[in-house]
Amino acid sequence: MGTVIDAAIDGDLPDLICRVAAREGIGPDQAREAVLEGSMVFMRRGDHALGIGRDLCTRVNVNIGTSSTLVCPEEEVEKARVAERFGADTITDLSMGGDIRSIRESIFQATTVPLTTVPIYETAARVGLAGMTGEDLLSTIREQADCGISSMVLHFVDRKILALLEREERISGVVSKGGAMTCVYMHLNDQENPFIELFDEILGIFRRHDIVLSLGNTARGGGIHDGLGPALQEERQRNCALGRYARERGVQVIIEGAGGHVRYDRIAPLVRSYKKAAPFPLFVAGPLPTDIALGYDHVAGCAGAAAASAAGADYICSISPSEHLGLPGPDQVREGLIAFRIAAHIGDIVKYGKDAPDKEISLLRAGLDREGQFARALDEQRARELAGDTPDCSMCGDFCAIRLMKALMEKRRLKER
Amino acid sequence: MGTVIDAAIDGDLPDLICRVAAREGIGPDQAREAVLEGSMVFMRRGDHALGIGRDLCTRVNVNIGTSSTLVCPEEEVEKARVAERFGADTITDLSMGGDIRSIRESIFQATTVPLTTVPIYETAARVGLAGMTGEDLLSTIREQADCGISSMVLHFVDRKILALLEREERISGVVSKGGAMTCVYMHLNDQENPFIELFDEILGIFRRHDIVLSLGNTARGGGIHDGLGPALQEERQRNCALGRYARERGVQVIIEGAGGHVRYDRIAPLVRSYKKAAPFPLFVAGPLPTDIALGYDHVAGCAGAAAASAAGADYICSISPSEHLGLPGPDQVREGLIAFRIAAHIGDIVKYGKDAPDKEISLLRAGLDREGQFARALDEQRARELAGDTPDCSMCGDFCAIRLMKALMEKRRLKER
Repeated sequence: MGTVIDAAIDGDLPDLICRVAAREGIGPDQAREAVLEGSMVFMRRGDHALGIGRDLCTRVNVNIGTSSTLVCPEEEVEKARVAERFGADTITDLSMGGDIRSIRESIFQATTVPLTTVPIYETAARVGLAGMTGEDLLSTIREQADCGISSMVLHFVDRKILALLEREERISGVVSKGGAMTCVYMHLNDQENPFIELFDEILGIFRRHDIVLSLGNTARGGGIHDGLGPALQEERQRNCALGRYARERGVQVIIEGAGGHVRYDRIAPLVRSYKKAAPFPLFVAGPLPTDIALGYDHVAGCAGAAAASAAGADYICSISPSEHLGLPGPDQVREGLIAFRIAAHIGDIVKYGKDAPDKEISLLRAGLDREGQFARALDEQRARELAGDTPDCSMCGDFCAIRLMKALMEKRRLKER
Repeated sequence: MGTVIDAAIDGDLPDLICRVAAREGIGPDQAREAVLEGSMVFMRRGDHALGIGRDLCTRVNVNIGTSSTLVCPEEEVEKARVAERFGADTITDLSMGGDIRSIRESIFQATTVPLTTVPIYETAARVGLAGMTGEDLLSTIREQADCGISSMVLHFVDRKILALLEREERISGVVSKGGAMTCVYMHLNDQENPFIELFDEILGIFRRHDIVLSLGNTARGGGIHDGLGPALQEERQRNCALGRYARERGVQVIIEGAGGHVRYDRIAPLVRSYKKAAPFPLFVAGPLPTDIALGYDHVAGCAGAAAASAAGADYICSISPSEHLGLPGPDQVREGLIAFRIAAHIGDIVKYGKDAPDKEISLLRAGLDREGQFARALDEQRARELAGDTPDCSMCGDFCAIRLMKALMEKRRLKER
């Protein structure tokens, strides 16, 4: 099977892609049109494909991976399993410590969803930032492509954006790790952005493997006081231009933006500014609408991501309770993921009116069917733990409003007859 | 000291009230004007007062209390302590089981914030719904007033609203417990709403004790498919009229609305419809913008409450992870409260630009000051637990973006010289 874009240009999308789109009520022509337009991408992994973009439910990504100071491969594999079990659409492996290739191989074995990487991470871990060359980056990209990575994030911060970032007098500076490493590379080598310099070669690799290019967001703010200045605007414009260039060369593109820390009332306008600038599916990390939620950033993130999803974000990256504190464990991955699945769904109700799951739960609630609710919970185990061992809800006991009113309405109906 | 309204009419608010307002930058004239207008109330408890309403930060209430089937007085006292310790502005005791007066007395002893009740709860627990009389309700109200309750919730659902509710064919019917009990009372006694019939007498008691009247929201939806029909509109109109009547008789008023389960995009318009209908501070329970978040309703609630707070809600009622599952324990009270304090603050940033706490945290983060962040965390213990025992954040290790970029910017500055 060739690339998705080639198939769309030639006429018909592969059956696999059509089936995936059909599951969400998208016909083959509509999917083809969206692919040609650039508003829908398909991340492929083996015989599976995941659609992201226009008219599709908001997707949720989970970041996992070791850091240079905390390496526990078994834990990363467990996090990957937890992510898939609790409904992650994609997983990004950000490992920078330990035997990265072997960890990635274990993650592959434990999961079926598309995997994303940020190639400069592995490269920096392998050769260090000081000695890194463009060839090192290319070699990582080739190797990761060969092993079946579905999407890669590259940061296209350039000298102009770096100068703008410098002038903005931000409190938190740059909080994108991939972006920061790219800036350091540029400085150490007194060079332009390596991914721009090697862009055609990289696009050739991506096209051969039908890898989705994710245009990283170096200029996102690390606090609500930062990040909406000229650097962000310049980066958005640059990324859109690079994205168009990549698509013309047969590479699928998503753009990262509107993430990081963003004041609540600025989230929707920011999302719309990205959607207006280019047709690419928008990938949003967070955003966090406040900086005060240490230990509860998944909760604040749900508020931000719901606003982003409702305004048009296509793909959101979950934030765990460990954000700003340390590498999350499996429990934190789960909590963060569920919070963002909730945010995604809140947005899908607004964007598409997809409120059928809510209606189903409401009907079960009205029928006081606890087991039915447990079975449909995003996290059945947690729901059961919180419910305790009482057979009925202990909240209202004999004075359950639903029960009281049901009985009352029934009596009123009988009286009327 | 007389009532707050009397003082405002006579000229000057009491020193206590002026000091409370001054803490949030509200001068005595501004506070007086807002009290006269009805847009600001002060709940009093002993020598303390809490302002709620226009130009004041969004307040957060926590519900506690036994149910008829789960009674553990020590646990309720612990929940009250946890609520106050983690920043609840008010606590509502909804006890319906055990020795309610003694439980309330223990809660009083364990806390300093204003306490709210829903008098029909204690009355129903004491005399049952079947035999309840208006005199029973009055006697509870008198007794609760005497023991120092700061605010009481009464539901003014009437025959017209009940008939409208019946016609709406809701999935979940009525989910307001106080409202449902009031409806049952009306049906059993074949009477109009008892609180309307006894309104002047009740207002006399409230005025004597300067108790804030909270106009309950019987018609709120129990699922996002319910609750925005004619019954809600009629109730809003009726409550606004009753509120104006109460204020003319010297009683402070807040109105409950825009709560329950509300589609995300309908939250802001609904909040604004209440703010337009009357000047009273708006008290919002939730709202939950989706029904699928069983076990994580505090997270979904944060998304809903942030939207409500940003749109103008003055006072929000926290939802715990145990919502729809059972009576929360102290840990769930804490989690729910923190989620709603985050929502309140997200709204305050939008409404008032009160982003100073965010700036403070951002500066600490930029300085990599973990201890400073812990000390300012909403829940220091949880933040420390999540951080584990590593001295630095384990997320990025040697490749911390903030650190890398700081070093880089410093080098660039030196080079320029």
